[in-house]
Amino acid sequence: MDSRRDFLHKFVLSTITLPMLPLVALAKPIMEEIAGHKGPILRVAIMGLGGYGTRVADAMQSCKNAKVVGVISGTPAKIKAWQAKYNIPEKNCYNYENYHTIKDNPDIDAVYVITPNALHHDHVLGAAKAGKQVICEKPMALNAKQGQEMIDACRQANVKLLVGYRMHFEPKTLEVIRMRNNGDFGKIRFFQGLTGFKAGDNNQWRLSKELAGGGALMDIGIYAINGARYMVGEEPIWVTAQETKTDPVKFKTDVDETIQFQLGFPSGAVASCLSTYNMNNLDRFFLNGDKGFAEMLPSTGYGPIMGRTHLGELNQPIVTHQTVQMDEMAAILLEGKKPIVPVDGEEALKDLQIIDAIYKACKSGEKVRLGEAVTTA
Amino acid sequence: MDSRRDFLHKFVLSTITLPMLPLVALAKPIMEEIAGHKGPILRVAIMGLGGYGTRVADAMQSCKNAKVVGVISGTPAKIKAWQAKYNIPEKNCYNYENYHTIKDNPDIDAVYVITPNALHHDHVLGAAKAGKQVICEKPMALNAKQGQEMIDACRQANVKLLVGYRMHFEPKTLEVIRMRNNGDFGKIRFFQGLTGFKAGDNNQWRLSKELAGGGALMDIGIYAINGARYMVGEEPIWVTAQETKTDPVKFKTDVDETIQFQLGFPSGAVASCLSTYNMNNLDRFFLNGDKGFAEMLPSTGYGPIMGRTHLGELNQPIVTHQTVQMDEMAAILLEGKKPIVPVDGEEALKDLQIIDAIYKACKSGEKVRLGEAVTTA
Repeated sequence: MDSRRDFLHKFVLSTITLPMLPLVALAKPIMEEIAGHKGPILRVAIMGLGGYGTRVADAMQSCKNAKVVGVISGTPAKIKAWQAKYNIPEKNCYNYENYHTIKDNPDIDAVYVITPNALHHDHVLGAAKAGKQVICEKPMALNAKQGQEMIDACRQANVKLLVGYRMHFEPKTLEVIRMRNNGDFGKIRFFQGLTGFKAGDNNQWRLSKELAGGGALMDIGIYAINGARYMVGEEPIWVTAQETKTDPVKFKTDVDETIQFQLGFPSGAVASCLSTYNMNNLDRFFLNGDKGFAEMLPSTGYGPIMGRTHLGELNQPIVTHQTVQMDEMAAILLEGKKPIVPVDGEEALKDLQIIDAIYKACKSGEKVRLGEAVTTA
Repeated sequence: MDSRRDFLHKFVLSTITLPMLPLVALAKPIMEEIAGHKGPILRVAIMGLGGYGTRVADAMQSCKNAKVVGVISGTPAKIKAWQAKYNIPEKNCYNYENYHTIKDNPDIDAVYVITPNALHHDHVLGAAKAGKQVICEKPMALNAKQGQEMIDACRQANVKLLVGYRMHFEPKTLEVIRMRNNGDFGKIRFFQGLTGFKAGDNNQWRLSKELAGGGALMDIGIYAINGARYMVGEEPIWVTAQETKTDPVKFKTDVDETIQFQLGFPSGAVASCLSTYNMNNLDRFFLNGDKGFAEMLPSTGYGPIMGRTHLGELNQPIVTHQTVQMDEMAAILLEGKKPIVPVDGEEALKDLQIIDAIYKACKSGEKVRLGEAVTTA
């Protein structure tokens, strides 16, 4: 079940042993513009107590503005363990049969949905119906149609919908975006995103079409898709894609092992990306402009993110992504703060539209045109 | 006319200023297996006295086994200058009207064709007809049809045909190939080749369909094509490609500015490549296998090539590529030495077949299947 963690473990090891990319100095104080202030506390119930849910809860122990106060799980033993570990009162514990009653609980502000991908749609709708703010892990849904329904449901319920795009708060990533907006790279020409790891256990939820909604593209390829958008700073207008499957036993129908995909942007910039469950050491971004470049390696792992530009090494502080994410989401939900790169349902919908287009392009072998150009970030 | 040199100049500068990729130590003694012996001298006439011809002639001053002894040029002033610089006797100087008489010159063994791409076909046929061994700069021809004709003509004339694949003799490149053959990277999964520079002067031959036979793909993209083959160690079975043109004034019809292309190999390995005349800082190879990886940056420039694998920095000696190439080609032509990676017409033909397929895929938007799988290198 822990392929992602295994991958990261291996990745960090291999990174440490590489002579050319030394680890940057120890963490500096967190950037002032990110989670730098003490505001009202967002009281969060985590739905789905798996590996990533635990990572988020652990990271939230260091939050200034967010706190785990409740849980929603189908496994009573997990609830007990979480209650003990995070000091969660009995009255804030729910299962999937009774969590609609969370609407009567004034001590919970938001539900963070960290269940398998295929369940996000129903769970977000349920949380919205209960009148709570919703945070959903990425991918927000299995396809754009579901995503739009979730946006509509939250709007109708008058709650906000955010998606767990932790990289949108990562200091080195934000520095590259700042430099790009400042024109430091000149006209952006090319983005390359290589994202993947070797999926281990054949029985994990990631390899089930029913639970994951697809394969590597949904789970890890989305980092390259989202990264292409925030690094280039435009919305793609076309997609081409090629699927390769070397292990049809492990990767069943509609569970993609390796997909190469290309994006074209209105400015003429292009992106070349790889999504895979069959390679290690793949967590690389490269952005190339007329005047300079940025390179991030690793680019989206849990940290530390490392990178350099034509001007030298990126030395922004190393942060725990989920800590900063949850502090910032508290400010967004409770104080109306506007993040540098959006993390709302509309942002996530754009990724889902591209995912739909990539799967379509894989099947048809043809270039798929996307909607009108919209500049982001 | 000097965009390639400008590019390399900039590239080396930017490399030097990058803190993460320090230059390796000064050149060590040349690898013993490469041009390590003193053999018979290959006496070479250079055809085409432009920038790259000069680079080759200069590099050959350090050759043990090859010597510039003649020239073929349409510009008398250039011939005079070369005679003085390289001590070339009058009797070994030819123009394009009389170079067929080189067949009567016993003091010249080989002709190295370094004229614009579109002229390679005729010039190789002429040199073969004159009974001389032929070395042709890459791309060998404008398309596979021409390439096959050149191979046939040389076979018929009973002369050998080699192509200027200097990377096939570059020590770090050969070390990566050795490691791959040794299984150090495990099963090869992915190759990425990003090759490009910013074409300057709008009037250079590179931007003329008539002289160059195409655009960036013919000139610089071929490094990624050839690199994909020698790094993966297989012949691709399919190609997809996408062309992007942002400057149709500079890059006229059939002169490609930027092409992304993807290759699929029989083993299931895939390659993702970029060829461009519109970006700087693009000279990157990345090879990823089950057990490790290799990364070269710069990967194909005139040097120094730098790189690392999962085991650490590649520290093979820095060589002048053209010096080693010409010493090795002397051994191939005069002593029947078999190079580690082929540099003959058949090798070049495979690149031309892929180039044809890429242009076809750009036009049709469809996946183009290539011939039967043949394992190389």
